[in-house]
Amino acid sequence: MASWIPIEDGSDFSLQNLPYGVFSTDDLDQRIGVAIGDYVLDLKALAQEKVFAAIDFDSSTLEEPTINAYASLRKSVHHDVRKLMQDILSESTLLGPVLRDHRDRRDRVLVPLSRAKMHMPMHIGDYTDFFVGLYHAQNCCDIFRPGMGLPPNFSSLPVGYHGRASSVVISGTPVHRPRGQIVLNGIPTESLCQKLDFEVEFAAFIGRGNKMGSRIDVNEAEDHIFGVVLMNDWSARDIQQWESTPLGPFNGKNFCTTISPWIVTLEALEPFRTTPLTADPQLPYLNQDEKQSVYDIPIRVSLENDSGTYSVTECNTKHVVFSFAQMLAHHTVGGCPMRPGDLIATGTLSGPTRGELGCFLEATRNGIDPYEMKAQFSGKQNISRAFLEDGDTIEFKAQVQGKSGLGHVGFGACKGKIVASA
Amino acid sequence: MASWIPIEDGSDFSLQNLPYGVFSTDDLDQRIGVAIGDYVLDLKALAQEKVFAAIDFDSSTLEEPTINAYASLRKSVHHDVRKLMQDILSESTLLGPVLRDHRDRRDRVLVPLSRAKMHMPMHIGDYTDFFVGLYHAQNCCDIFRPGMGLPPNFSSLPVGYHGRASSVVISGTPVHRPRGQIVLNGIPTESLCQKLDFEVEFAAFIGRGNKMGSRIDVNEAEDHIFGVVLMNDWSARDIQQWESTPLGPFNGKNFCTTISPWIVTLEALEPFRTTPLTADPQLPYLNQDEKQSVYDIPIRVSLENDSGTYSVTECNTKHVVFSFAQMLAHHTVGGCPMRPGDLIATGTLSGPTRGELGCFLEATRNGIDPYEMKAQFSGKQNISRAFLEDGDTIEFKAQVQGKSGLGHVGFGACKGKIVASA
Repeated sequence: MASWIPIEDGSDFSLQNLPYGVFSTDDLDQRIGVAIGDYVLDLKALAQEKVFAAIDFDSSTLEEPTINAYASLRKSVHHDVRKLMQDILSESTLLGPVLRDHRDRRDRVLVPLSRAKMHMPMHIGDYTDFFVGLYHAQNCCDIFRPGMGLPPNFSSLPVGYHGRASSVVISGTPVHRPRGQIVLNGIPTESLCQKLDFEVEFAAFIGRGNKMGSRIDVNEAEDHIFGVVLMNDWSARDIQQWESTPLGPFNGKNFCTTISPWIVTLEALEPFRTTPLTADPQLPYLNQDEKQSVYDIPIRVSLENDSGTYSVTECNTKHVVFSFAQMLAHHTVGGCPMRPGDLIATGTLSGPTRGELGCFLEATRNGIDPYEMKAQFSGKQNISRAFLEDGDTIEFKAQVQGKSGLGHVGFGACKGKIVASA
Repeated sequence: MASWIPIEDGSDFSLQNLPYGVFSTDDLDQRIGVAIGDYVLDLKALAQEKVFAAIDFDSSTLEEPTINAYASLRKSVHHDVRKLMQDILSESTLLGPVLRDHRDRRDRVLVPLSRAKMHMPMHIGDYTDFFVGLYHAQNCCDIFRPGMGLPPNFSSLPVGYHGRASSVVISGTPVHRPRGQIVLNGIPTESLCQKLDFEVEFAAFIGRGNKMGSRIDVNEAEDHIFGVVLMNDWSARDIQQWESTPLGPFNGKNFCTTISPWIVTLEALEPFRTTPLTADPQLPYLNQDEKQSVYDIPIRVSLENDSGTYSVTECNTKHVVFSFAQMLAHHTVGGCPMRPGDLIATGTLSGPTRGELGCFLEATRNGIDPYEMKAQFSGKQNISRAFLEDGDTIEFKAQVQGKSGLGHVGFGACKGKIVASA
């Protein structure tokens, strides 16, 4: 599949991808767009051109300032809209000329990416963070309860907790170093966080919800997922450690969580499925027919500061013991209602080796053993970190390429810079 | 203060109270109202009558279908609106005749409570549940970790966790017995909850929020609280016990949380302040100047089923070690943004004796020792419960009376009936 729009070889946004975001420009109010090469396809403008008239759905959902209403529609609508967008952007289909050969229309619906300011793509009702990364769980247990092994429920259910929706922000938003209560020399103290960390995660936005008291079947759960983003669940380890017993993480997590701006659909990721780590027999409500339910997507992490750019780690979305479908089936087994725009995340995605750990907590064993990171340009010295310093920017990037002919599928950057406390 | 509207002696809704709710009728769309005696004062209609013209605020916020926009205004606006409502409803003020003597206007703005269908008063962005009840915490520790005492952080900070906003519902909504994963004979099993419980709580709705990265000072925190409601945080104890380690409660809580429909303002509760339980020195950010920061409000709990109505317990909102102001200061110390409509709750409010426990978990020591409840009508036999059965309705009521001349301040009912799993 090639497009008549020039798409650079390394672009995240091929015809195979077509991820959804929300953007504005100096001239355009906040609206839904789809990334293609170095452009954003303005879906509000495209809907107003009646391009979607042949598809049976309420196209005014594409003129909203968030994706929530559109995401709540049937999967078949998303499929048909995707197919139509591929057709009009392709150089070899009958519909190709619809945009390509009409310069006025083209100018109305294609916006250079460089002019787009990105916004939160969906209004998040509730955000849930899971803890399904196998190596992350093993490492955390080794650090905080050595010799005791994984929690007994770890392989029976996707362990999760409710997070804070109000502090989920779009890539590029500054991250204020939080203050809070930590224990210094055995005494509870009000202090700036001294153990500020990143966490590499993968997160799914809910499309269609379920009513309170009903449940989502594990084998229908993917129909309820609109798409996925990269997530950095910034963590204040010292605040978290003191507050977390007995009810779990709170202020150690709720100061900021960053997501990448483009929601990549499951259709775009179809070629990149793989098998999850778990082989345990599952209870019926978690028993997913489709075993290729997890995605093989490497996530590369870099740190940038005034002195240079450094490679931190490479994680992968496959290092989990439960799929998003299983998380969703578990989340709703008791009747908990999901709403369009709700967000569920994997928890940290560490791999089995030291170069694949998804946070400094693991890489430094809670700050004891500083972690050396390689400068990305020759002539620069490596640096080491126990935890994050003010002025550090952490950036996640992820891009996969399928079989020949398929373009890249990437997520755009998920990044944030640590700034001093306000 | 007496009103020209007849108010029965036992009414929750005196001139001192004037709580806000959202209602509709067969003829009226969803709108904001204030309860007075057996009536609802329709604030949308009242705003359209230009009754609030003398107060400097955007009165269109009173024509919205939720209280969020109005609650986000300055406290002085809420004060002025309250004063004006008291004046036009009072029999002894100059403004009394504005409604009393204009039958057409009166008919337009006063709706019989019996015709009002109540809705969620605010759109909840995030819901946070704390764990600041002293006796509840002591009892839970005695049951689950005997001899180990309270968690070390309990008196240093308001322990809390993020709850699920999507499952908070208005009084009267049926409660589906959840399914979930529990341990039976040592084996993780998918089952209906066998330990379904209520929890007596008190909750505050946020009015004005704060920006991400900023904090709310403990001594300004009450300016950010619009008002309070009763809350039943229904709990599936068997699901909760298996899932909660290491990240806290999840499906054991997110199937349903019920609130009373009327938001009682802090101004209405001013005469009912008392001293919190804690005497520990606090860190500066939790050090509240005003020591009378907790309210002395008894909450009576009854259980009704086909065979009768039974007295369950009497709790009190004063059995806490931190105030709402302290919870809010702690919640935002790291920069977590609060939004209008966010909800923060105390956790279970047990008292020191067996007749004052706020859940069956405590009253039955996790189901071991069935709890006898007294029939409210003579000739009926008492019943006992380990946990809740299908068909049980649990109702909370709370009403306080101040010095002579002040009417009652009550919350209306907070109730829900257990129904079989959907």
